[in-house]
Amino acid sequence: MNARSRPGPLNLITDVGGLLVGNAGDDALKSGVTVLTGDRPFTAAVHVMGGAPGTRETDLLAPDKLVTEVDALVLSGGSAFGLDAAGGVMAGLRAAGRGFAVAGQHVPIVPAAILFDLANGGDKDWTESPYTDLGREALREAGTGFDLGREGAGLGAMTATTMGGLGSASLVLPWGATVGALVAVNALGSATIDGGRHFYSAPWEIGGEFGGLGPAMPSDPAARPVTKADGAAGGGQGASTTIAIVATDAKLSQAQAQRMAIAAHDGMARALVPSHTPLDGDLVFAAATGEVPLSDPVIGALDLGHAAATCLARAIARGVHAARPRPGDLLPCWSDLS
Amino acid sequence: MNARSRPGPLNLITDVGGLLVGNAGDDALKSGVTVLTGDRPFTAAVHVMGGAPGTRETDLLAPDKLVTEVDALVLSGGSAFGLDAAGGVMAGLRAAGRGFAVAGQHVPIVPAAILFDLANGGDKDWTESPYTDLGREALREAGTGFDLGREGAGLGAMTATTMGGLGSASLVLPWGATVGALVAVNALGSATIDGGRHFYSAPWEIGGEFGGLGPAMPSDPAARPVTKADGAAGGGQGASTTIAIVATDAKLSQAQAQRMAIAAHDGMARALVPSHTPLDGDLVFAAATGEVPLSDPVIGALDLGHAAATCLARAIARGVHAARPRPGDLLPCWSDLS
Repeated sequence: MNARSRPGPLNLITDVGGLLVGNAGDDALKSGVTVLTGDRPFTAAVHVMGGAPGTRETDLLAPDKLVTEVDALVLSGGSAFGLDAAGGVMAGLRAAGRGFAVAGQHVPIVPAAILFDLANGGDKDWTESPYTDLGREALREAGTGFDLGREGAGLGAMTATTMGGLGSASLVLPWGATVGALVAVNALGSATIDGGRHFYSAPWEIGGEFGGLGPAMPSDPAARPVTKADGAAGGGQGASTTIAIVATDAKLSQAQAQRMAIAAHDGMARALVPSHTPLDGDLVFAAATGEVPLSDPVIGALDLGHAAATCLARAIARGVHAARPRPGDLLPCWSDLS
Repeated sequence: MNARSRPGPLNLITDVGGLLVGNAGDDALKSGVTVLTGDRPFTAAVHVMGGAPGTRETDLLAPDKLVTEVDALVLSGGSAFGLDAAGGVMAGLRAAGRGFAVAGQHVPIVPAAILFDLANGGDKDWTESPYTDLGREALREAGTGFDLGREGAGLGAMTATTMGGLGSASLVLPWGATVGALVAVNALGSATIDGGRHFYSAPWEIGGEFGGLGPAMPSDPAARPVTKADGAAGGGQGASTTIAIVATDAKLSQAQAQRMAIAAHDGMARALVPSHTPLDGDLVFAAATGEVPLSDPVIGALDLGHAAATCLARAIARGVHAARPRPGDLLPCWSDLS
C-alpha cells in the first residue's frame, strides 16, 4: 500500500500480474500483431465508439452472454484481413490445451480488433493472409517485457502527422490495484498539437515518460486539426483506428469491466484529436484478472475508470514517442521532429 | 463562407438558426429547467455514457425507431423528479398545436434528461413536483438570447470544487454550417485543474471566452482529482450528472446525429475530470435542423463531430466561468477563486 499512485515497475500493462504481451511483425508487410494473454483466463469486456470498427468475438463480451472470460485479446494491423490473427492465436492456445470447455472440446476465446494499415507503403501483395501466422508467432513471444513503438499491431501504424506505434503505461493505486493500458495508435487525427512535439496527453504525463514538454496551446483552437481524411500520407478516408486494452488485477464483474472500458475512452479523447469519428473504429477492451478486491464497490470502480483513462492517454503518447524510423515510412517519427 | 471557423454572433447554441432556449428556476428550490425547442420539429438523437442516467423518451431516438424528429429537448434538475418537466413542456407545446400527428391527436415529442441537485442546500420539501410548472415556464421563456451560469437546469448545479452552471458556445464552420452546445454542468469531478482557476478546456478556448488563462499541469498527474464521491459538499455518491445538447443547422440523418452526439462526448472528457463514471448519468443529445447540406458526406460529418466536441468543452468551461454566488450555496463559484 502506498499513499500516492505511481507507475508500476515496468510502466507496461504487464505490471498487472499474470498478463503477458507478445508481438510479431513483418517489416516488408509494414504490419503486425499484438496479443495479450494470461497465465489463466481473465474477465473481459469491450466498448466500441468509432464509426468504422473491425472486430471478431466482441458480441460474446456483452455481460448477458454466456462467456465471461477470455484466453487472449488480439490487436492487429491488416484491416479486416487482420482478424485472421485471432485464428493463429486460437491454434496456439488450443495446442497448449487452453480454451472454454464444451462437449469434450476446448475452444479458446480470443476477441480481436483491427486497425487499417493497408496504405502505409508496405508490401500488401500477398495471396494468403499473413496474419494467421503472425498471430501464432505473437502468442509464442508472449512475456512480461516488450518494446514500444514500431512493434506488433503498431509496426505500420500512422497518425495524421507522424508514424504511430505500440504504447503502454501502468499505474499502481494506493489501495493496491494495478491498472495498465496497451494501445496501437493509428489515429485519424494526431497525438500532438499542430502536429508538433507537444502531446495532447501532457497533463497526464508522469516523470517525463514521453518527453516532459508539458501542455501547449494550438495555433488556432477553432480549427479542426488535420486528419488523414484531408489527404495526408498513408491516409484517405477510413485509413485509421486506434485500438486499446486496459487491464487491472482488481476483481470486476464483466459489467464493471465494461464500464472501465467506457471510462478509458476518455483517455483516447484527451490524447488524440479528433477521436471517435465516423471514419475510425476506435475501441477499448477491458481485462480484469480478479486478484485484488475492490477497495469499495463504488469508489474502487471510480478509481479504476479514471486510472484506465489516464493510463490510456499516457500509453498513446508513449507509443508515438517511442516510434523510430524504418525504411519506406511515409511520415516522420516524433523523434525526427525538431 | 469564411476561411476560418469562428464562434457565431451570440456564442450560444441559438446561433443555430431556428433554435430557441428557455430557462426557468427557483432560487429557494435551488433548481430549474432548461428547454431547447425550435420553430419547427428537428432531427434528434442521444448517446448515454454515464453509469447512472435519468431519462425520458430516449428509447425512441434510436435510428430504427418510428419518430425521427422532436419538438423540444429538456434538461432538468431534480433527479428523476425533474423528468416531470417534460410533461409541462408537452402541455405547453400541445396548447400551441405542436406535436407528432397520430389518430387525430398531436403528441409533442419531448425527450428529457436530468441531473442530481437534491443535496445542494435548496428547499426540497415539496409535496407536489415543481418541475411540471418549471418546464411550462421555461418553454414560455424560449428565445434566442439567454444567460449563462446559475440559470435553468444549471441553477443549482455543482462540480466537486465549485458551483456549476449552464453553459453554451457555438462555432461557424468554413463551409457554412453552425454548431452549438448547451450544457448543465453538474460533474462528479471538476472543470478546473486541482480545483483552481485553470480550466481543463483551455486548449479549446477562443478569444478569452472563459478567462483566457491557458493550460496548466495538475500538481500530481498520477492522482485522481477529488470528486463528490470523496465527500465533497453537496456530494455523496450519485450526486452528479452533466447533461448536454449539441446542435447544428446541417442536414443530418438521425444516425448521423447520433454519431455527432458520440463525438461530442470527447468534449466532456476533455473538460471534466473524471467524466463518464459509474456514478454520473453523463449524456449528450444531438439536434439537427437540416438547413445546410453537408459539405461532403464524410468530411462534413467529421467536421461536425469535432466542432460539437470543442463547443461542448468550451460550453462546460463557460458555464462554470459564468456562475455567480447565491445565498445558501455550498461551494464557491469560479469567480470567487483567487
